Amino acid sequence: MNYGFIRYTLSRLLQIEAGLLLLPLLVSVIYQEPVENIQAFVLTVACIFIFSLLLGHRSSGKTQIYEREGLLIVALSWILLSIFGALPFYFSGQIPRYVDALFETVSGFTTTGSTILTDVESLSHSMLFWRSFAHLIGGMGILVFALAILPKMGGGMRIMRAEVPGPEFGKIVARTSLSARILYLMYLSMTAVLIILLMLGGLNLFDAMIHAFGAAGTGGFSNYNASVGHFGSAYIEIVLGVGMLAFGINFTLYYYVLVGHWKEVLRNEELRWYLAIMGLGTFAIAFNSATHFPTFSETLRHSFFTASSIMTTTGYTTVDFGLWPLFSHLILMGFMVIGASSGSTGGGLKVTRLRTVIHSSILEIFHVREPKRVMSMRQGSRAVEPNVVRSVFNYLGLYMMLIVGMTLLISLEQNDFSSALGAVLATFNNIGPGLGVYGPVSNYSSLTDASKILLTFSMLAGRLEMYPILILFSRRTWRNTL
Amino acid sequence: MNYGFIRYTLSRLLQIEAGLLLLPLLVSVIYQEPVENIQAFVLTVACIFIFSLLLGHRSSGKTQIYEREGLLIVALSWILLSIFGALPFYFSGQIPRYVDALFETVSGFTTTGSTILTDVESLSHSMLFWRSFAHLIGGMGILVFALAILPKMGGGMRIMRAEVPGPEFGKIVARTSLSARILYLMYLSMTAVLIILLMLGGLNLFDAMIHAFGAAGTGGFSNYNASVGHFGSAYIEIVLGVGMLAFGINFTLYYYVLVGHWKEVLRNEELRWYLAIMGLGTFAIAFNSATHFPTFSETLRHSFFTASSIMTTTGYTTVDFGLWPLFSHLILMGFMVIGASSGSTGGGLKVTRLRTVIHSSILEIFHVREPKRVMSMRQGSRAVEPNVVRSVFNYLGLYMMLIVGMTLLISLEQNDFSSALGAVLATFNNIGPGLGVYGPVSNYSSLTDASKILLTFSMLAGRLEMYPILILFSRRTWRNTL
Repeated sequence: MNYGFIRYTLSRLLQIEAGLLLLPLLVSVIYQEPVENIQAFVLTVACIFIFSLLLGHRSSGKTQIYEREGLLIVALSWILLSIFGALPFYFSGQIPRYVDALFETVSGFTTTGSTILTDVESLSHSMLFWRSFAHLIGGMGILVFALAILPKMGGGMRIMRAEVPGPEFGKIVARTSLSARILYLMYLSMTAVLIILLMLGGLNLFDAMIHAFGAAGTGGFSNYNASVGHFGSAYIEIVLGVGMLAFGINFTLYYYVLVGHWKEVLRNEELRWYLAIMGLGTFAIAFNSATHFPTFSETLRHSFFTASSIMTTTGYTTVDFGLWPLFSHLILMGFMVIGASSGSTGGGLKVTRLRTVIHSSILEIFHVREPKRVMSMRQGSRAVEPNVVRSVFNYLGLYMMLIVGMTLLISLEQNDFSSALGAVLATFNNIGPGLGVYGPVSNYSSLTDASKILLTFSMLAGRLEMYPILILFSRRTWRNTL
Repeated sequence: MNYGFIRYTLSRLLQIEAGLLLLPLLVSVIYQEPVENIQAFVLTVACIFIFSLLLGHRSSGKTQIYEREGLLIVALSWILLSIFGALPFYFSGQIPRYVDALFETVSGFTTTGSTILTDVESLSHSMLFWRSFAHLIGGMGILVFALAILPKMGGGMRIMRAEVPGPEFGKIVARTSLSARILYLMYLSMTAVLIILLMLGGLNLFDAMIHAFGAAGTGGFSNYNASVGHFGSAYIEIVLGVGMLAFGINFTLYYYVLVGHWKEVLRNEELRWYLAIMGLGTFAIAFNSATHFPTFSETLRHSFFTASSIMTTTGYTTVDFGLWPLFSHLILMGFMVIGASSGSTGGGLKVTRLRTVIHSSILEIFHVREPKRVMSMRQGSRAVEPNVVRSVFNYLGLYMMLIVGMTLLISLEQNDFSSALGAVLATFNNIGPGLGVYGPVSNYSSLTDASKILLTFSMLAGRLEMYPILILFSRRTWRNTL
């Protein structure tokens, strides 16, 4: 185990976090907030520096790492970033309990958007900014960001594979650091475009940034209690609805568009499935919940926004979908599980995994009928490796085991089935609002500390696609040799 | 496609059904029931004979069949047996609507035990007998029965594999017809022992037979509205609880016991998991629902009975478990999905499939951590073939697709999540009572005809492990050549 490299990388990452904390500090100064807020940020930066010095700031020289180190770096950096990222809320007294502050911060970084705040609007601008800025950082990944700005970091490929969501990771270009830089440039440019579009709809810069960060990271934090419904503007809803949808697409495809490889984009099976599922779901919900709105075009607008928000695992809301009929609920629950595309900022199982499971299962019917006929799974023009299918199914198996286990634990305190399952699905798939008691018009503040910690774990395990977090619990991981 | 052989086999099977109908006819005569009942059975037998003559009663000579014919014979025979088996209820007027009669009959043959009757006790003895006798026939399988009594039937191995539940089918002895005979002898002997034990507890012969059939087939039809709770006897509950558990075990293991191969039994992984899950579940439910009963021993008795009843997919009840807390509900829902052992009379996913999924998924964690380390799945002393793992996962994929699809359809008429999902789980896994509106103290009579037909399909697809029923919908299946 290359502990030296792990410590060095973690120390660098914490320094990056300290740097990023200067932005909310600036917000605090601009809005002339009370001195407690400024102190909270300064104190946090100080804590981070002391800790990063303890970790050691010099490279050990040996930068050769294996899968294990890559996974550990990702898991530990997300945990450390969250632990320190929660401090400003706590130090400033705006979230008086540390468990709550940690929940809120992890919810930010993992782009979940679940909140324990009963009144979001009571938070200061700087805290609201930091909370939403975490979405932007976590969306594309803090380590990808580090790789983009620290080209000599080393271990890039293994780290990026462990942090970027999806079963298969394809680099955009041969050099990892360049891939990371291209990804981040596209990501930040798209966010900037979204900010401008929102301002054209009448939002001030602050509101536009908050909601663009939330959509870009597919996070879903708003600075208003009524979420996007606060604006009551069809233009804003459509811009954000399309925006969320765009950030739920594999970013590699945007690169293909940039370099003119349109064929690759049009042929992409995951994209087709993603858009088809969205479209079908939107219309199914619209027809099912039509009686809840005065006109069909309004129904369609709300169902599109909600479908886009849930499937991309963002979690913005314009209406209380908790009031819609069960059929619509089930479709939304399905969307929660399916999630967005691999290589996007969205969470969930990912469309490509769903596609693999459905495809492979249906082939089995024909295999049982004609065991001697040779059939192979194809994705576009390539045959799908049996290893890929196996790992997708194993992922699904673990996914279900964690969902069942966590729902059982939550059920010890929450006796309503939809609420308990909804809380686990909404956090594990990084959506935000759940169903029932934890639905869109409510929040997670009523939970006990034990459940809040469980759901914090759920958000992290879901964002990092389980493995980095799960191996922390195996003693063999920590041995010097394997 | 060997249509000649299929028609011949179906015709013989219908003749066997006609023969079996003489038993309820005898019950009708013994209890001196009104002449309408006797007429109903005679008329049904006549219908069956006319139809079987139309099918043709002479063997085509060519008995060579492939997987496709085996699956088709199983699917079509179960459908035909149900269509004709429903006639006595309909002709006698005791179940006035044919859709209801068919639901009840399929529920009998598939050993589900769901009912559309609001007052079971109003049925005559002969109809109650036929309803429960269907459990006994369906439990071990009508085709296995045919193979046992018609040694020259042909196609045995392929037919048996398609009808006996579980991912891998191992014949007991080399000759298929002898395997079938041994299975049925053990099955009927165990049922006889159960009848005697129940009579020792004070039940009359009729009640003992009804409940022994229900336990043996893991079906769950009772002739009392309060199910097993009617007797209010701890002895009866323990006898039936252990009895159901015994019929949920792979029958091959009983053969090993008979021939003294104890080692094979003790080493059997599925048996260990089955008993461990049952034990853990029983205690978890008992501690969770302890406040619902005056003493802990009574709690333990009811939780053992309920756990055994649900996990073996029988569906007998002694108390309204709908009143227990969500944690207990979730464990019972888990049991509904897991089901009993392969090669038993129980339904569900089967313990061995669960074991394979869990085992394979956990190995993936270590594989992700150390991709170069060679790891293989073992079951006892043998390595598990990758093909077996693949087919188990594909089965799981299809299983979930059907559950989701049917729950969506039911949700169009039933707006309560637990009730809608519970109805699908309870029928597809052949349990009987569901949750909520269709829970243990209620029934399925309130559903529309469309939903009743959907759940009838659900019971058949679940009992036959999907493939035989699913290939009916593929045009390629019906071609003369493949």
